[in-house]
Amino acid sequence: MSRNVLLLPGDGIGPEIVAEAEKVLNKVNDQFSLGLSFDSALVGGAAIDETDTPLPDETLEKARNADAILLGAVGGPKWDGLPMARRPEKGLLGLRSNLELFANLRPAILYPQLASASSLKPEVVSGLDILIVRELTGGIYFGQPRGVRQLESGERQGYNTYQYTESEIRRIGRVAFEAAQQRGKKLCSVDKANVLEVTVLWREIMEDLKREYPDVELSHMYVDNAAMQLVRAPKQFDVIVTGNMFGDILSDEAAMLTGSIGMLPSASLNSDKQGMYEPCHGSAPDIAGQGIANPLATIISAAMMLRYSLNEESAAQAIEAAVSKVLDQGLRTADIMSEGGRKVSTREMGEAVLNAL
Amino acid sequence: MSRNVLLLPGDGIGPEIVAEAEKVLNKVNDQFSLGLSFDSALVGGAAIDETDTPLPDETLEKARNADAILLGAVGGPKWDGLPMARRPEKGLLGLRSNLELFANLRPAILYPQLASASSLKPEVVSGLDILIVRELTGGIYFGQPRGVRQLESGERQGYNTYQYTESEIRRIGRVAFEAAQQRGKKLCSVDKANVLEVTVLWREIMEDLKREYPDVELSHMYVDNAAMQLVRAPKQFDVIVTGNMFGDILSDEAAMLTGSIGMLPSASLNSDKQGMYEPCHGSAPDIAGQGIANPLATIISAAMMLRYSLNEESAAQAIEAAVSKVLDQGLRTADIMSEGGRKVSTREMGEAVLNAL
Ligand SMILES: CC(C)[C@H](C(=O)O)[C@@H](O)C(=O)O
Ligand SMILES: CC(C)[C@H](C(=O)O)[C@@H](O)C(=O)O
Repeated sequence: MSRNVLLLPGDGIGPEIVAEAEKVLNKVNDQFSLGLSFDSALVGGAAIDETDTPLPDETLEKARNADAILLGAVGGPKWDGLPMARRPEKGLLGLRSNLELFANLRPAILYPQLASASSLKPEVVSGLDILIVRELTGGIYFGQPRGVRQLESGERQGYNTYQYTESEIRRIGRVAFEAAQQRGKKLCSVDKANVLEVTVLWREIMEDLKREYPDVELSHMYVDNAAMQLVRAPKQFDVIVTGNMFGDILSDEAAMLTGSIGMLPSASLNSDKQGMYEPCHGSAPDIAGQGIANPLATIISAAMMLRYSLNEESAAQAIEAAVSKVLDQGLRTADIMSEGGRKVSTREMGEAVLNAL
Repeated sequence: MSRNVLLLPGDGIGPEIVAEAEKVLNKVNDQFSLGLSFDSALVGGAAIDETDTPLPDETLEKARNADAILLGAVGGPKWDGLPMARRPEKGLLGLRSNLELFANLRPAILYPQLASASSLKPEVVSGLDILIVRELTGGIYFGQPRGVRQLESGERQGYNTYQYTESEIRRIGRVAFEAAQQRGKKLCSVDKANVLEVTVLWREIMEDLKREYPDVELSHMYVDNAAMQLVRAPKQFDVIVTGNMFGDILSDEAAMLTGSIGMLPSASLNSDKQGMYEPCHGSAPDIAGQGIANPLATIISAAMMLRYSLNEESAAQAIEAAVSKVLDQGLRTADIMSEGGRKVSTREMGEAVLNAL
């Protein structure tokens, strides 16, 4: 049985960090006889430069046929002036939507070795372990109609549509309830049901689902309050479930609570558990090509890929243990550097993980 | 010349905190011969209970005729089951929209006396002084169409519309640029222009306005990054301008950085500088009626009212100085209590401010 992993390095630091993750995957592939084969393709700005489109047909085809996808990052100032439909982000959004990767799992975990990196007080964040479940193929990201129109008054109006159907809400709700069952059994659904009708429906469906998961404690929170509570007392949360836009905002906020966004992975799954895995951080064009980016979020994303899409728990754990070991050894890329650490390059960090395997 | 101030105590702790602010206003009214007269009216849940509507005609009429409005807070679990159109929040939203209070100013200031209340490290927040300018009468809060519809498939779909016209963006942009001119001359406009067309227009208009304010440095940031940067390094910001929904989320997050949301005021202004002033915190139904709520955010909101709508800078400064003095004296309501402070009730705090005047 051969399984197919598609590598999509993308833009900015993407190629550098994916290269390290690829080495790590190659090694566990041998060690655990996983039978993985690798391919790669263009997406985002890199694809625009070569093919004039952020998501070439060939890439989409390869993605459809892959058992799992590992993505670096997309975007950068170079392509900022392009019209919306031809921006690098459309490559990412196109993959999410074409493969129906509706369930985005974003853990925000504080690594004890990096506790001091957080801008929050140690007692507020020590031991932090939250999972944000973000709906990824609906909501205002994909709602129609959208655009900029000319009003009769002569001026222009921009507009987007925030929408969810019952079944879209239900399927992401189930993912979140199931994740909560595997963890602390607490689920907080975030909405703005005091203002937005679409989230009144969201809340109703979540309440409805609750009956199927009697062991999970469901609560609801308005998004403004959630943004506040994440700063005030993040450890009150176990699993948070929310829509695409609120999830984009809250998962980045939650990630930053740890102070080390260079460490955080994410998974985007469809109902066949096919998935795309990527670091939470972006393409960091300011440091691209310098060999100093942190490859660990991508390497940990590869571990998540082995766990969720390829059913290779032991290999996943081996990678995670290796990452923990290099942190214990004091190795630090620039973004997580602190006193007493040994500063290493992207490649040195990748090599260290390889050696620890 | 007599000027009319309308008091809207609202729900939860609203009546308790507005009562203290009223005493303070009465005192400066005498001290500075301001010629203010006061009236009050029902809004929110309190209005629903008496008149079956969250914004009675009489309240709206009084609000239109007032020179300025001081609001406590609206909402609470008691009214959570009501349909959207009859919820307490509609009272607040109705006032904002009927009076065209499009410019919401929300300062996030760390009081040096309360620095330890923040969940962030002292070096990250000490001296924090940000102003968030939030558009308040447009965007997805008021966009049409909205609701829940039945699809042909038989299932329901909730939908809301996020929209802005050029002129709506321009008028809030001007308020923000002018505020930046009075402060640190740095304006950050927050959008999601890599995904949402409505915010592409937002960004274009902000860029356009820049030419009229050459002394202000304009930058743009995606909302997910802004949520992160507020946690990582909030002092990088001077003035932030953004739409209604993003502003709701980011202003609450920013407020919580200070750790003392019980201290933060807000102003909502229209183009005649008529304004509604209210604390940033909500109606706190869990502690309502216990006499322990912090009245200072409301008292400081009253000071803002004197400054922005009533042109009484000296009286505003007198109130702010009095608040600073009671903090120096170590008086603390429960929400801002810390070691060495003297815990006081809502009324005691109000009295202390009166005495300090
Ligand atoms: C790049 C951008 C389109 C994307 C998003 O908004 O979803 C990113 O911020 C993310 O969270 O993965
Ligand atoms: C009560 C609610 C409708 C309101 C809002 O979302 O605008 C509140 O959160 C605020 O920020 O003033």
